[in-house]
Amino acid sequence: MVGESPSSAGLVLTKHCSEPNAPSVCSSNGRTSDFESDSEDHFPGASHDRGVYGRGRRGSYQYLSLTEKLQARIESGEPFFSLEFFPPRTKSGAANLLSRLERLRHGGPLFCDITWHPAGNPGGNSETSSMTIASAALNYCCLETILHMTCTEATVDDLNRHLARAKELGIKNILALRGDRNEEGRPSDFSYATQLVRHIREEYGNYFVVAVAGYPTGHPEAVSYEEDLKHLKEKVDAGADFIITQLFFKPEYFIKFVNDCREIGIRVPIIPGVMPIQSYESLRHMVKLSRLEVPDEIVNVIKSLKDNDEAIRNFGIHQAVTMIRTLFQSGVAPGVHFYTLNREVAVTCIAKQLGLWNLHPHRALPWKVVPNHRRCQEEIRPIFWAARPNAYIYRTRHWDEFPNGRWGTAESPAFGDLKDYYLFYLKSKGSKEELLNMWGFYLESEQDVWDVFYAYITGRENRNGVKVTRIPWNDDELSEETIPISEKLATLNRRGVLTINSQPNVNGMPSNDETFGWGQQGGYVYQKAYLEFFTCGKTVDILKRLLVQYPQVNYHIINKNGKFNYTNAYTNCPIAVTWGVFPGREIIQPTVVDSESYLVWKDEAFALWIEQWAKLYEDGSKSQQVIENIANTYYLVNLVDNDFPKDTCLWELLNLVLDEVERESCNNSSKLDQVSSESFDSAISQELSCCENESSDQSHSASPSAAILYIQSVDSMVRRPTSHY
Amino acid sequence: MVGESPSSAGLVLTKHCSEPNAPSVCSSNGRTSDFESDSEDHFPGASHDRGVYGRGRRGSYQYLSLTEKLQARIESGEPFFSLEFFPPRTKSGAANLLSRLERLRHGGPLFCDITWHPAGNPGGNSETSSMTIASAALNYCCLETILHMTCTEATVDDLNRHLARAKELGIKNILALRGDRNEEGRPSDFSYATQLVRHIREEYGNYFVVAVAGYPTGHPEAVSYEEDLKHLKEKVDAGADFIITQLFFKPEYFIKFVNDCREIGIRVPIIPGVMPIQSYESLRHMVKLSRLEVPDEIVNVIKSLKDNDEAIRNFGIHQAVTMIRTLFQSGVAPGVHFYTLNREVAVTCIAKQLGLWNLHPHRALPWKVVPNHRRCQEEIRPIFWAARPNAYIYRTRHWDEFPNGRWGTAESPAFGDLKDYYLFYLKSKGSKEELLNMWGFYLESEQDVWDVFYAYITGRENRNGVKVTRIPWNDDELSEETIPISEKLATLNRRGVLTINSQPNVNGMPSNDETFGWGQQGGYVYQKAYLEFFTCGKTVDILKRLLVQYPQVNYHIINKNGKFNYTNAYTNCPIAVTWGVFPGREIIQPTVVDSESYLVWKDEAFALWIEQWAKLYEDGSKSQQVIENIANTYYLVNLVDNDFPKDTCLWELLNLVLDEVERESCNNSSKLDQVSSESFDSAISQELSCCENESSDQSHSASPSAAILYIQSVDSMVRRPTSHY
Repeated sequence: MVGESPSSAGLVLTKHCSEPNAPSVCSSNGRTSDFESDSEDHFPGASHDRGVYGRGRRGSYQYLSLTEKLQARIESGEPFFSLEFFPPRTKSGAANLLSRLERLRHGGPLFCDITWHPAGNPGGNSETSSMTIASAALNYCCLETILHMTCTEATVDDLNRHLARAKELGIKNILALRGDRNEEGRPSDFSYATQLVRHIREEYGNYFVVAVAGYPTGHPEAVSYEEDLKHLKEKVDAGADFIITQLFFKPEYFIKFVNDCREIGIRVPIIPGVMPIQSYESLRHMVKLSRLEVPDEIVNVIKSLKDNDEAIRNFGIHQAVTMIRTLFQSGVAPGVHFYTLNREVAVTCIAKQLGLWNLHPHRALPWKVVPNHRRCQEEIRPIFWAARPNAYIYRTRHWDEFPNGRWGTAESPAFGDLKDYYLFYLKSKGSKEELLNMWGFYLESEQDVWDVFYAYITGRENRNGVKVTRIPWNDDELSEETIPISEKLATLNRRGVLTINSQPNVNGMPSNDETFGWGQQGGYVYQKAYLEFFTCGKTVDILKRLLVQYPQVNYHIINKNGKFNYTNAYTNCPIAVTWGVFPGREIIQPTVVDSESYLVWKDEAFALWIEQWAKLYEDGSKSQQVIENIANTYYLVNLVDNDFPKDTCLWELLNLVLDEVERESCNNSSKLDQVSSESFDSAISQELSCCENESSDQSHSASPSAAILYIQSVDSMVRRPTSHY
Repeated sequence: MVGESPSSAGLVLTKHCSEPNAPSVCSSNGRTSDFESDSEDHFPGASHDRGVYGRGRRGSYQYLSLTEKLQARIESGEPFFSLEFFPPRTKSGAANLLSRLERLRHGGPLFCDITWHPAGNPGGNSETSSMTIASAALNYCCLETILHMTCTEATVDDLNRHLARAKELGIKNILALRGDRNEEGRPSDFSYATQLVRHIREEYGNYFVVAVAGYPTGHPEAVSYEEDLKHLKEKVDAGADFIITQLFFKPEYFIKFVNDCREIGIRVPIIPGVMPIQSYESLRHMVKLSRLEVPDEIVNVIKSLKDNDEAIRNFGIHQAVTMIRTLFQSGVAPGVHFYTLNREVAVTCIAKQLGLWNLHPHRALPWKVVPNHRRCQEEIRPIFWAARPNAYIYRTRHWDEFPNGRWGTAESPAFGDLKDYYLFYLKSKGSKEELLNMWGFYLESEQDVWDVFYAYITGRENRNGVKVTRIPWNDDELSEETIPISEKLATLNRRGVLTINSQPNVNGMPSNDETFGWGQQGGYVYQKAYLEFFTCGKTVDILKRLLVQYPQVNYHIINKNGKFNYTNAYTNCPIAVTWGVFPGREIIQPTVVDSESYLVWKDEAFALWIEQWAKLYEDGSKSQQVIENIANTYYLVNLVDNDFPKDTCLWELLNLVLDEVERESCNNSSKLDQVSSESFDSAISQELSCCENESSDQSHSASPSAAILYIQSVDSMVRRPTSHY
C-alpha cells in the first residue's frame, strides 16, 4: 500500500493519526494472507505517532501499552521525546503545571513522568501529591504517564497501597526506583529497585509497564561501573520493560553504555535522559542531583556567561541539540527523555530544532482522547461538555464502560456529581481580581451581563478596557472553528441570547482540514449546526412559536429546576451532530445531542452562574442578585439544525425571534406609558402572565425578578442607541 | 410540529416510514414536558404505516406488537388492509404463494394470516404446513403474520407443541378458533375457542397477540345472535386482543354488529372480513364456508353473468369496493381483512381503488426488514447477501442478537450452514428446462459462461434467443439502482470479470429518492461504490499489481479453498458501504463489507456454481466440467472505493486490468506460435508459473484446468472478432 504523505492530495488508506492518543487506529497490518509481510515496511511515511488503541481480533478496541507504543516507535525509526516533571509544592503551582502539560502535549511527547518524593506523602490525595499530579497528567492533560515510585522508605503495605491507588486511577506505568538511602531508618521492606520490580510483577503480573533507571557512567554509589551494569541487568531480568538513563554530558557515554548493556544481554529499549542547562543555578542543581562531573568545556562556557541567563539558556539549548543529534545519528537512541525541571521553553525549543515537535497535530477525535486504558473504547460524547472536557472526564471517571459506535439507548448513564468546584484541575484559572475585571466589578442589570458575553465573543475590550478571555462555561477564548461565526454569535449575545456552546455545519470536509478535521487521513467529516444558549422567558415564548416554522430544527429548552422541559426530540433518541467517514472503517460518530445527558448538564450549566460568577460578589449585593436572577429565571436552550448540507437556518430563526421580542417590548413600552395611572403592580402582573407562568414554584421569587427584567428590558430599549459598543 | 406531506420539498422531522416494518422508528411522541399533549394530533399527515420498532426509554429498539400497531393505526385514522391465505397443497404451490406474498407486501398490508387445517399436520415441518407457511410469510416474505390455530381436534399437549414451535419460529400472533366440530371423535381437550384463548394466556402470558373470530350475523351453530355475542365477549374477556369477522354481504350487518358489541362491553378493535367474489364457483364456496345467505341482488347479478368470469370478477371488485367504502364512512371499520383464497388480482385492485394500496413504498432500510421480534434490533448486514436475503435470514435465524449501530468486532459471527439447497423458499424459481435455456444447454468454454453473464446484465437475448432473467447468485433481474451502471458492468462481464453484486457510489442523496433512498424523510443517504466478481487467476495477478496505484480501494480476493486470501482491510475492521443521516437520530449504517463474513459468504458463492449450474448437466459432461473448472480456479474479488464523493475509479481500474490481460494474452499467443516445436506441456507449465502458483494443494488439478483456461483464452482471443454479441 502506498503510505501516507501528509502533503499528498490523493486519498490514501492509512492507519495512523498524528495524534499520539488516537483510538480509532489499528495496531497491526491488515494482511491475513501468507503472502504479505507483517512488517511496517509497506507503510512508508506513516505518521510517527501511533494510536493508543489497536484493534484486536476479538473484542473491540485493544489498548496499546506504553511498551508496545515504544516498540512500534522504535521499529518505525522515527525518534520521539518524553518529559519528566516533579510535583509542585503549591496548589497554584500544580494548576500552572497542568496548563504547561496541556501546552506541551501539542508537541506530541510519547509520555511524561512524575517524580516521587517520599517525604511529601506522594501517594496521597492532596492536589500536589505525585499520585494526584500523575493522575491529572493522564486523565486531564491526556498524556501517557509514568509514575515514579521509590521503595527504600516504604513498607510492602505502603507500596501495595500506592500501586492499588495508581491502578484505580488508571495509571499503568511505574518507574521503579530505589530512592535515597533510608538514612532516617524509616520502616522499609526493600533496599533495591530490583526488589520493587519483582514485587510489582508478582503482585500485578503484566498490568503495569515497569521502567527502571540506568546510569551511563555508573550509579554514584555503585562499587564499579561493571557492578552497576550487572545490577541493571538484574532489574531488567526481574521484569523491567525499558530503561531511562540519568543525565549525562557527553554522547559517547551513552553510546558506550548502550553497547555495554547489549553486551551483557540487556535487550530492552534504553532511552537517554537529557537535562538542558537552563541557567547557572540549574547547572549546579544538575551536578548535585547526578553527582556527575561537568566537562570542562561546558563549565568554562557557563562561567563566561555567568551573568547572562538568556545566553546560558541558549547555550544550553545548543548543547542539548548537538548532543542529541549525535545520539540519534549513532542509531542507539530511539528518542530522548527530558528532565524539564517543570519548565517548558527550553525543551520546546530543543524538540522543535530536532524536528521532534509535532508541527501539525491532528486530532484523532474532535475531543481530546484520554489515554487511560479504562477509557480506550470511548468514542462518543455528548456535545454539552465540549468546552468542559475535564468536568466530563471527572463526572464519568467511575464508568465501567464507555460509549462507542453509537450512544444508543442504554440505561440512563449515571454522572457523578461535580460538587467540589475547587478541584484544582477543574477550577477556573484566574484570580478573583482578574475575573471581576473581565466580568464586571459592578452589575446593574442583565444588559451588563449580555455585554460581557458580547465582549467575550468579539474579543473586543469590555468597559473596563479589558479583554474577556473566558466565561464560566469556557476557560479558553473562542476556538478556531467558532471564529468564522463569531460576528453572528455576537449579534445574538448582545440581544440576550447568551451562547455558551456552538458549532457550525460542515458538509463533508476532508478529515485533514486544519480547522474542522479529525480522524485518519483520507476521510470526510460532517457536522450539524448546533447552538446552545441561556435566554429569558420572553425570548423562549417567541422561540417556541417560531420553531414550528423550522421543522428541521431539533430543540430542547429547560429551566433550572427542570419543570419546564420542552423538546421535540424522539424519546431516548440521541442525535448525531458530528460524524466522519473514513477509508476502510465503519462510520465514527463522536458527538451527539442526548436529552438524558442534557438534563444532567443543565444542572452544571446553571450552577456555574452561581459558583463562578455570583460568588465573586458580596452576598446580598446588587451584582449578585443580577446573576442569581438570571440563573433562576433564564432557560437553557439547545438547537440542532438537521439540514446540514444547507446554510443553517439558526441565525435567521434567532434573529426573527429577537426582532419579535423587541417589537413586543416596544409595544409594551408604549402600553406602559399609557397605563402610568394604573397601579404599577397590575402592569407587572400583566407582563408576568406571558412569562414563567408554568413555573408555579417560582411564583414567589418570580414577581420581583420579572419586574426587574421588565423594567430593565424597557430601560435597555430606551438606552440602546447609546449602548456601550 | 409540522407533519409530513410526502410531496413537501422541505425537510421535516417525521417519525414514520411508509414501510410497515421499519426498525428505526420511534413509537411514541417525544415530548417529555407536561405542557404537550401525548396524542398524535401534532403529527398531521404522518405516514399511515408505522414502524414495527419503537424505542423505549430503556434498552434499544422496542418491538411494537401487532396490537400496538393496530392501535396506532386506528388512532391515526388511516384505514389499513390485511390478507388471509391458506397453505397450498403442493411444494410448487407453496413456492408460488410466497412469490405472491412478496408482491402483495409492496402494497403495505398491516398483516397476513394463515389458516389451519387439522387434517394436514398443520403444525409440522413440511413445506406446505400452516406452521411453515406462516414462518415463511413472517421471516422470508417479511410480513407481520398471524397463525390460525383450532382446538377441537387437538389435545393440550398438541396445542402446547404447536405454540412452542410457533414461538421458536418467532411467530407472535395467533387467531384462536374452535375449528370444526370434532365429529370423528379425535382426542381433544377443548371444545371452545374461549378455552384456547385462556390457555394461551395462562401458558404464554402476553407473548402472543391473540385474535378471535366474530360473526356479524351470529355463528351458524349458535343458539341465537345474542348468545353468540355473549360468547364473543367471553372470548375477549379470556384475553383476546382484537376480532376479525366472518365475511358478510351487506355493510349494515357489520355496522350493527359493532354497535352491539360495544353495547355489551366489547372494547377491542373489530376488523371486517371481506371475500371478493372472484368467480361463480367462489361464490358457491363462500356460501358453503360461511353458511350465509347471499342477498338476492348479488345472486341475480351473478346468475346473469354466469358464463363470464371476467365480468363476475369485475362485479365482485365493484361490490367489495362499494361495501368497504360504506364501512369506512361509517367510522366503525378501522380497516378491512380480505379472504384472498390465495389470489392476488382482485384484492390488489380493490385495495388500490380504495386508496389502501401504498403507491410509494419506501424502504426503512436498504434491505427488507424482517418483522420477527427476535430480529427487531437488526440494523446492519454484510453486503454480500444483498441479492440473497433469504439465505442470510436462514443462516442467521438462530442468532440471539442481531447487529445494530455498528457491526463492530464482536466474536466472529457463526453462520448456520446452507446445506439444503432445495428448501423451497430458497430454491431457485424456474425449472431445469428454463435454466438450461438461459444458461446454456451446452457449454464449450468459459467464454460461453461469460456470455451468459453479459446477457443477464444487458437484458439482451442470449444465443438461444432467450432473456437471461437470473443467475445463480441473483434470482431477480438487475435492480433499479444497478441499471445506470449496467453497460459498464456488461463490458466487464464480457471480458471475464463476472460481477455478482455491485452498488454505485451515492453522495448525500435525499432519503426519499426513488431509487437510492431509504429511511425516514428528510435524511441523506450515502454509498461507497462496490463491486464483487469472479475472475480467473491471470486477471487477479494483474489486478493485484494495479491496485497499488489505487490506494483508496479496499479489496479482498479469495479462492474456493480459502488458501489464497488477499486483503488490505484492517484486521477485524468492517467497512461501512451504506449509511444515512437523519433528522433527530444517530447515524444509521445498514451495510458493511466485513472480512470475516466474506470468508463465510465465499463458500456459498462458490458452491452456487455447482449446486445451481453444474448440476444441470450430466455428470462428467463437458458443460459440467466447464463450470466446475471455473468454480475451482476462479477467484472471488470484492472492491470498495472509499472515495465516495468522487466518480468511482473502479471502472478505470478494471478496464486497465483487462486491457493488460489481453495484452499479455496477445504476447503469449505469439509466443505459443513460436514454441510450437516445444512440447505442449512445457508451454503450459510456463503459463502456469504465473497463475495459481500459490495454491499448492491445487497443483494436481491445476494443470489440466489451467491448460484449458489457457487454450480457451487464446482461443477466445482468436475468436473474438466473431463474438456472439
